[in-house]
Amino acid sequence: MERWCLCERCGLIPPISFNKRPTKIGRRSLSRSISQSSTDSYGSAASYTDSSDDETSPRDKQQKNSKGNGDFCIKNIKQADFGRREIEIAEQEMPALMALRKRAQGEKPLAGAKVVGCTHITAQTAVLMETLTALGAQCRWAACNIYSTQNEVAAALAEGGFSVFAWKGESEDDFWWCIDRCVNLEGWQPNMILDDGGDLTHWIYKKYPNMFKKIKGIVEESVTGVHRLYQLSKAGKLCVPAMNVNDSVTKQKFDNLYCCRESILDGLKRTTDVMFGGKQVVVCGYGEVGKGCCAALKAMGSIVYVTEIDPICALQACMDGFRLVKLNEVIRQVDIVITCTGNKNVVVREYLDRMKNGCIVCNMGHSNTEIDVASLRTPELTWERVRSQVDHVIWPDGKRIVLLAEGRLLNLSCSTVPTFVLSITATTQALALIELYNAPEGRYKQDVYLLPKKMDEYVASLHLPTFDAHLTELSDEQAKYLGLNKNGPFKPNYYR
Amino acid sequence: MERWCLCERCGLIPPISFNKRPTKIGRRSLSRSISQSSTDSYGSAASYTDSSDDETSPRDKQQKNSKGNGDFCIKNIKQADFGRREIEIAEQEMPALMALRKRAQGEKPLAGAKVVGCTHITAQTAVLMETLTALGAQCRWAACNIYSTQNEVAAALAEGGFSVFAWKGESEDDFWWCIDRCVNLEGWQPNMILDDGGDLTHWIYKKYPNMFKKIKGIVEESVTGVHRLYQLSKAGKLCVPAMNVNDSVTKQKFDNLYCCRESILDGLKRTTDVMFGGKQVVVCGYGEVGKGCCAALKAMGSIVYVTEIDPICALQACMDGFRLVKLNEVIRQVDIVITCTGNKNVVVREYLDRMKNGCIVCNMGHSNTEIDVASLRTPELTWERVRSQVDHVIWPDGKRIVLLAEGRLLNLSCSTVPTFVLSITATTQALALIELYNAPEGRYKQDVYLLPKKMDEYVASLHLPTFDAHLTELSDEQAKYLGLNKNGPFKPNYYR
Amino acid sequence: MERWCLCERCGLIPPISFNKRPTKIGRRSLSRSISQSSTDSYGSAASYTDSSDDETSPRDKQQKNSKGNGDFCIKNIKQADFGRREIEIAEQEMPALMALRKRAQGEKPLAGAKVVGCTHITAQTAVLMETLTALGAQCRWAACNIYSTQNEVAAALAEGGFSVFAWKGESEDDFWWCIDRCVNLEGWQPNMILDDGGDLTHWIYKKYPNMFKKIKGIVEESVTGVHRLYQLSKAGKLCVPAMNVNDSVTKQKFDNLYCCRESILDGLKRTTDVMFGGKQVVVCGYGEVGKGCCAALKAMGSIVYVTEIDPICALQACMDGFRLVKLNEVIRQVDIVITCTGNKNVVVREYLDRMKNGCIVCNMGHSNTEIDVASLRTPELTWERVRSQVDHVIWPDGKRIVLLAEGRLLNLSCSTVPTFVLSITATTQALALIELYNAPEGRYKQDVYLLPKKMDEYVASLHLPTFDAHLTELSDEQAKYLGLNKNGPFKPNYYR
Amino acid sequence: MERWCLCERCGLIPPISFNKRPTKIGRRSLSRSISQSSTDSYGSAASYTDSSDDETSPRDKQQKNSKGNGDFCIKNIKQADFGRREIEIAEQEMPALMALRKRAQGEKPLAGAKVVGCTHITAQTAVLMETLTALGAQCRWAACNIYSTQNEVAAALAEGGFSVFAWKGESEDDFWWCIDRCVNLEGWQPNMILDDGGDLTHWIYKKYPNMFKKIKGIVEESVTGVHRLYQLSKAGKLCVPAMNVNDSVTKQKFDNLYCCRESILDGLKRTTDVMFGGKQVVVCGYGEVGKGCCAALKAMGSIVYVTEIDPICALQACMDGFRLVKLNEVIRQVDIVITCTGNKNVVVREYLDRMKNGCIVCNMGHSNTEIDVASLRTPELTWERVRSQVDHVIWPDGKRIVLLAEGRLLNLSCSTVPTFVLSITATTQALALIELYNAPEGRYKQDVYLLPKKMDEYVASLHLPTFDAHLTELSDEQAKYLGLNKNGPFKPNYYR
Repeated sequence: MERWCLCERCGLIPPISFNKRPTKIGRRSLSRSISQSSTDSYGSAASYTDSSDDETSPRDKQQKNSKGNGDFCIKNIKQADFGRREIEIAEQEMPALMALRKRAQGEKPLAGAKVVGCTHITAQTAVLMETLTALGAQCRWAACNIYSTQNEVAAALAEGGFSVFAWKGESEDDFWWCIDRCVNLEGWQPNMILDDGGDLTHWIYKKYPNMFKKIKGIVEESVTGVHRLYQLSKAGKLCVPAMNVNDSVTKQKFDNLYCCRESILDGLKRTTDVMFGGKQVVVCGYGEVGKGCCAALKAMGSIVYVTEIDPICALQACMDGFRLVKLNEVIRQVDIVITCTGNKNVVVREYLDRMKNGCIVCNMGHSNTEIDVASLRTPELTWERVRSQVDHVIWPDGKRIVLLAEGRLLNLSCSTVPTFVLSITATTQALALIELYNAPEGRYKQDVYLLPKKMDEYVASLHLPTFDAHLTELSDEQAKYLGLNKNGPFKPNYYR
Repeated sequence: MERWCLCERCGLIPPISFNKRPTKIGRRSLSRSISQSSTDSYGSAASYTDSSDDETSPRDKQQKNSKGNGDFCIKNIKQADFGRREIEIAEQEMPALMALRKRAQGEKPLAGAKVVGCTHITAQTAVLMETLTALGAQCRWAACNIYSTQNEVAAALAEGGFSVFAWKGESEDDFWWCIDRCVNLEGWQPNMILDDGGDLTHWIYKKYPNMFKKIKGIVEESVTGVHRLYQLSKAGKLCVPAMNVNDSVTKQKFDNLYCCRESILDGLKRTTDVMFGGKQVVVCGYGEVGKGCCAALKAMGSIVYVTEIDPICALQACMDGFRLVKLNEVIRQVDIVITCTGNKNVVVREYLDRMKNGCIVCNMGHSNTEIDVASLRTPELTWERVRSQVDHVIWPDGKRIVLLAEGRLLNLSCSTVPTFVLSITATTQALALIELYNAPEGRYKQDVYLLPKKMDEYVASLHLPTFDAHLTELSDEQAKYLGLNKNGPFKPNYYR
Repeated sequence: MERWCLCERCGLIPPISFNKRPTKIGRRSLSRSISQSSTDSYGSAASYTDSSDDETSPRDKQQKNSKGNGDFCIKNIKQADFGRREIEIAEQEMPALMALRKRAQGEKPLAGAKVVGCTHITAQTAVLMETLTALGAQCRWAACNIYSTQNEVAAALAEGGFSVFAWKGESEDDFWWCIDRCVNLEGWQPNMILDDGGDLTHWIYKKYPNMFKKIKGIVEESVTGVHRLYQLSKAGKLCVPAMNVNDSVTKQKFDNLYCCRESILDGLKRTTDVMFGGKQVVVCGYGEVGKGCCAALKAMGSIVYVTEIDPICALQACMDGFRLVKLNEVIRQVDIVITCTGNKNVVVREYLDRMKNGCIVCNMGHSNTEIDVASLRTPELTWERVRSQVDHVIWPDGKRIVLLAEGRLLNLSCSTVPTFVLSITATTQALALIELYNAPEGRYKQDVYLLPKKMDEYVASLHLPTFDAHLTELSDEQAKYLGLNKNGPFKPNYYR
Repeated sequence: MERWCLCERCGLIPPISFNKRPTKIGRRSLSRSISQSSTDSYGSAASYTDSSDDETSPRDKQQKNSKGNGDFCIKNIKQADFGRREIEIAEQEMPALMALRKRAQGEKPLAGAKVVGCTHITAQTAVLMETLTALGAQCRWAACNIYSTQNEVAAALAEGGFSVFAWKGESEDDFWWCIDRCVNLEGWQPNMILDDGGDLTHWIYKKYPNMFKKIKGIVEESVTGVHRLYQLSKAGKLCVPAMNVNDSVTKQKFDNLYCCRESILDGLKRTTDVMFGGKQVVVCGYGEVGKGCCAALKAMGSIVYVTEIDPICALQACMDGFRLVKLNEVIRQVDIVITCTGNKNVVVREYLDRMKNGCIVCNMGHSNTEIDVASLRTPELTWERVRSQVDHVIWPDGKRIVLLAEGRLLNLSCSTVPTFVLSITATTQALALIELYNAPEGRYKQDVYLLPKKMDEYVASLHLPTFDAHLTELSDEQAKYLGLNKNGPFKPNYYR
């Protein structure tokens, strides 16, 4: 969903000071913490075996595609065919972008756009990039994560003529080198930024501040990046309009409610094979993520308890049929503990001490702060890695707690994000670029904006055909009665 | 859902131009249309038989309670004991107001408040009035609906010393006379208004505009009344602060999602005894009301189709497992049609003509506009009243459509509103009065306000004990981490 | 669920020793206990007002329909038109019987059959009787319950030429007189019995034992009647084949699981207007009825606990997500107690004493034995009738328990049975008559039989068109592979 | 569900004529077809890496455990410690067997029993074997499947003194050699058989028929094995009592309804990462497996259609809210096709041709007969293996069908069986052994028996503590009223 940083769901990389470059240590510890999740998330497709790969750094290789173009840096151009197939499969599940491409046969809303991007480089991103190209844009791209690049997809993109600078397993130095190669090219200046995490934006601010004169806008995907932009804006340092696509309704509902409703089951099954029927579960937090987890587990026959701090969400939990408790009331009896609060230290050592043998503990909320994992790193407790992402923490009396993903996000570490969800994100990004690029002078100032409601609705409408869903249209008379434009927007901006 | 509707949910005057007094015709047509719903909604409790009652108008009777007080006008003071019992039963289910009373033993936040009220006069209202008194207020009250008064409750209030002016079956002239009696008393001037529909506010504006000099604020419950206040505000004519309690989160969720989830089943059963299992149902509109209806019917084994105009709600319907269709795709095959759009002419004659024999048609949305009932008043169709609130409309070929409540709101006409929901409304009203009455100078201007988030949360928290629900409290460290006050508010104002 | 119960579901005589005529007291206590339920169950349709009716007993009136036929005894032949409309409405919801009628245009499987029947006389029964006639049978009919007759339906039947002997409010003497009039007619002898409760069968055994020589079989609907037949069979006194239609799969599933899933909600709402969301409920017994109740309440947002004695059903409750408890563990905290055990004294005074204020107590199981209502008839407790079927039982400290239907069956007393369920029963009865009447010599001996699986499947198949449901047919190859006949039966006899 | 199927659920030999030895080809094709499923099902636990293992056949190695005992044949005794830990983990989730062990401290119901077993050799089986030993039995064991043995568990058993003959990847010759080594030992004769698939029983019948003189009974787990036993019985050749534990209620409900409700989601996610929300799914067959699949998918927001041949199950599907269709009505529109019929050729080429691009096809029913996979092996279609267990079958126009597990059972191939389900099976086996071994002369004849209802209930009761579930006990009075023994059995034998 949203990786790095440390609480992407809420905006975290701990609000490090923006003017300080992330230290090596910061970056490294990040790398370590996400390595496995990256592997799992992106590696579930049949993965091209790299075992025979040489150890030469891509930066040291001569790179050239079959047409003689060499303006890219990837792992192995020979994987291009395999990557192309992965892209083609992804295309089938991203109908909204394909619809944009079709529409682009007539108009090219991004004609003249020079987009520099920094995102995960996956098959889904490739579909986005090729869509942007079809819409008229030129693209240069780097990875926003040193582990998440699908090498074969990068190869296919390079073979297709894209200037891609990314491979799986970059060093930190590689990471910034790649970003620089995207931006720093004689005779080419970007006029749009598509960022996921804020590193690219940060780099340009630091190294090439003058570039912002030509830049029409920034589209930012991640919580962390958005947080940084708001800080910049607050400090009066944001010099172009920026679009926060993280908080669009469609994306939020899918990332949180609908996606988590499925990934909680998937993540628990893949790691523990636990049977849900009859299990007692406590879910901490009844926001969108908690609602999704509770609904899924209730449907599978679990008995679900909820903890909440907000009385309104608490009342909703009651009305939805969940007993609202304090954690200490049920901690001795539950089989599974799931955190979805966005808070820190929700499950502390005191609670861990009182859980029963075999209790499964995991985090669906944010970052790695919700479970106080550090408190389990004490001499009297034994850790036993029983599977990838699964540790048994063993008490002196033999009691075992099953800790998943070391307290990091279960849904990112131990299940996959459906392409359909990624499709919504990618479409939102594309539309945000179009909006910023084409907006008349003055519509957007040097501030952070939400995607206009109407475009949010448009993203949703592009995904309805997937479900063979047929929207009703207002008659003129009805639209007048409701005081609405027939084409929307249909709801106020704050509507969720 | 209900934008400036004029809907029976509040039982009120059609949204006539505010400066014109409602004509007799307007009032009468209203009376006719709501009479049955009023009877049903409020008459389900064992009703004191009035059959032996004399026909003398209460206005012509001498009225006196057992202590000799005569400042009220009701049907029959002898019913006071019966009414008292009804009030006591209601008290048991309104724990939040009882908690406020308890708290009022120490402080009297309404000391000095002179509240004039105009609402439905029911056992639940009585609990509210007696709570306001406990909080320090003096109260004078009239009915906001000519049919909804529970005479025995009015009697109990009069016996208890309240100046109540209301009976079931008032004429229009009675209606305004009662309101006037509340307001127009020598030596007493109200300083707070609690209104439900805007008629009381309207009356004071028209007759006693000078009273507003002493009035600290208006608390308005209904959609229509709120709409009028916004119009006044827009026109620059609102001369005191007003609190819109209709749109508080808690109330909205309960009125729409949770309450409709139950009342759709209840309303259909009481009127038609239909079996839900296996039935094909189309629900028009997937807002909160539609979500509630769909969830309930799905759970009972119906096959539910949804129509929507808004792509975001449409996508939610898809993700919740409902086929999204246009009405004409399924109109021939469905057994039940339910409207929840807030729109007009959603079910028109063309669709009614194509429905199959026995199809049930009803409205959960707003007002009586959603189904084009007028189009069924044609000579070739026969109407047959088969039960209270149930008409068979019969086509020349013998096809019968089962029309409920003549297209008016099913949940108001054919089921009851749970006391728990009324408790939330009443508590919100009480807190809004306290807030407006005690707000420091300048906090509220001559405008319409939403209940502050924190008070909304407080209403919710007062209802948690009913469910034996235990809220978790933030630690200092956690509150700091989240940037929240430990006592809330916990969410931004727009959070739903 | 209902083993040798005596239960009101059929409205019958307690399982007195069969050889002893029911005493006056037995009959009377019955009458009293079912009176209200009868009224409610059958009176929800707009009921013809009998208030102006004279008090002359139907037995003392001269009876004649418009064709001059007088071989019947009913309340008032003038109500025939109204009754005919009720029958026509019922026909629309009993498609299976209508399908049998259509088929009967070609063959008359009951040609020559002389059926004497004793069942509830309702619109649905009328559809059955007219179907039997269409199939070739002659019918004479009495009521199996002194309160359940719909007078207007009886009138329509008499007007249509049926020899009906029944009215609402028969005395016990009337009851047996009516049965006798059905049977004891010169020149006419029944050859088939359709009974519901065993009274008709009993009467013939006692008075006209020789009639059994011509009788080809008995079809019995009720638990009690079936129990009596098994006793007769065991005692070697059953002298004709009998068909137990009570235990057919289709009927059982509908009467218990599907019907109760809806009627628990309906019964609770109509009597108490309780909001289900967030309520804590304990359901005693997890058989089919309990499963239906639990599923419905869980779906409405209640928190449901289950008690069970059978470990297999207990494990099912666990897997379906319900906490399995002993009643005493939760009795202090629940808001609603529902019994579905088929047992006696499940809720005893000790538990009633410990319930919290406002707790609702009702019985969905059988008879009136599950709740020890007698234990509440003590001087220190006050009973207050607050609505029809709703009593408040008040403890000295003011605590109120809300007792529904005085502990009798909630679903019969306080909700209605959907026509669809009655349609399944009636179709099963018709097919059982056809089977017994046409069975080749020797297929059935003097014993009690279940409806053959294949006919059970046929009943089900006749109801599928209601749902526009399309059955798949086996290919020859598939049938061979499975070792099945292409037309069924598809499952072993014990399959549920 | 699985009538005399031959299905991989048990991993066995096709239902060849029993008197003919399975041909090499039969065995081999079996081996190939189950290899992957075995790997997946049993390999999800962190698997001991065998990469460094030598290629020497275990039969050629000298085998000895640390105590010098060499009466076993396994892969590698050094893996014993790792296997022991796996067993200990399994013990935690098999409380019923542990309860039996505890009870065995007093009595040894299997004292003197010499059990020869042939089942999957997994950690759960090890817990069973060690329980049998604790109960007094001596055990010798072979594997019932050439691929399913967990080598490390076999090692732990050998180290613990068990005579185990099994390793992963046996040849067919090895398979029978291992069985023979279990049986054919001088000075030791088995008196009980525990079989899973019937191969062990078959072997003794063929080679050592005289052994049956001392054998007290056979406990058979699999559908295929049970089928063979019924055939033997029918042919008059069964010479000892046999217990069919496959059809016990508890096992059936868990294997089918509860287990499939979870494994359908798990299997689909692990293989395809598909998002369930909004997907259109057709489930063929509405028996227990179909019911489980439908309930799970409906809960996850899929729109589910059902096909059925049996009108009773069809009506159940309707009442549960599923549209009942013929496959051809929806085949063009669905996203997922799931077979649960127990039939053959349910999804034939004609349907596969009409599916839409990307449609997922899988089998939850039995064996590999439901989907006509053979029809897809034609030259114009291209197969592409995209992941383990996932093939894309590509039509000439580019349409891709996603075929899972090559049409074999999804739940066995692509998800895991929860230990809790295996615990029920193992407990049932243990109790069946105890029952047969201790039954008084004459209770069981040379026939096939179902586990007595009471023992089925006992198995259930042993698993209730896992859920902290508390069973209610009948009072003497209640037991008498119901005509039941207080300790059960509580339901008739045919109760499901």
